[in-house]
Amino acid sequence: MRVLGVDCGTECTGYGVVELAADSRLLCLACGAIRLSPREALAVRLAKIFDRLGALIEEYHPEQVAIEDVFYAVNVKSALKLGQVRGVAMLAASAAGLVVAEYAPLSIKSAVVGYGQAEKHQVQHMVALLLNLESVPEPADAADALAIAICHLHTAATLQRQNAV
Amino acid sequence: MRVLGVDCGTECTGYGVVELAADSRLLCLACGAIRLSPREALAVRLAKIFDRLGALIEEYHPEQVAIEDVFYAVNVKSALKLGQVRGVAMLAASAAGLVVAEYAPLSIKSAVVGYGQAEKHQVQHMVALLLNLESVPEPADAADALAIAICHLHTAATLQRQNAV
Repeated sequence: MRVLGVDCGTECTGYGVVELAADSRLLCLACGAIRLSPREALAVRLAKIFDRLGALIEEYHPEQVAIEDVFYAVNVKSALKLGQVRGVAMLAASAAGLVVAEYAPLSIKSAVVGYGQAEKHQVQHMVALLLNLESVPEPADAADALAIAICHLHTAATLQRQNAV
Repeated sequence: MRVLGVDCGTECTGYGVVELAADSRLLCLACGAIRLSPREALAVRLAKIFDRLGALIEEYHPEQVAIEDVFYAVNVKSALKLGQVRGVAMLAASAAGLVVAEYAPLSIKSAVVGYGQAEKHQVQHMVALLLNLESVPEPADAADALAIAICHLHTAATLQRQNAV
């Protein structure tokens, strides 16, 4: 199973494609971040995120997309901004006919580090270990996106086992 | 000049297409609302808004799109939800190569009613008067969308006159 994880952000949106191989190993197929210039018009920035995610889906053919479910933002203004990016990311998945799974930050950290209050660098470190990467994924948004994908693969695998019983 | 006004909402998104004729009359070409069932998955709802707005742009060929610039929401959670709809609406305009103009609620009410603190029913009433409609546009979201389009046409006309001097 192959999953695209997306870590939405107003200035930088991380992405990561992870595959759960038949031997239960996790493979990182791609990761990176879509950086946006605040000087560009918002509609143009949103179009860039949509196009980039669409291109990633076309290139790597993930079967599902996972994004972070956000309940918290510093204030209403930043929540509105973040919502705009999230909406476009969900649309990119939906436009490709893919189902979007949402996970709370606590679930993502628990799935990767085993501890819901884990720090950012702990997440980066564990993602590198789990995916057998030579170095820690940079920027942190890319590591977060990989963590979201891993969280979804863990959850999907558990559900599959439960259904098989 | 022809403008598509969009009033973004998480359950109901209003739209209105208004043309400023050569004789300075304002014509309503279309108005209505895209209603969304909260039972459907969010990604599916966002795709519906995107598709509907795209179809409206294709049918009516507006030259510009105007939406409300929101700074206020009841809380962070509702701001995130509203942001998702806004992001998708802006993307629909951007995908069609159209520029998006944003107006604060105060500017929209001032442009239509002449008073920034106007009530919803006053906006509906004035929109019907300005567009020479036989009845008040329903639902209120459709009237709001028409008000946004009228606000943009007023602003664009003023700017044009200023540039012509």
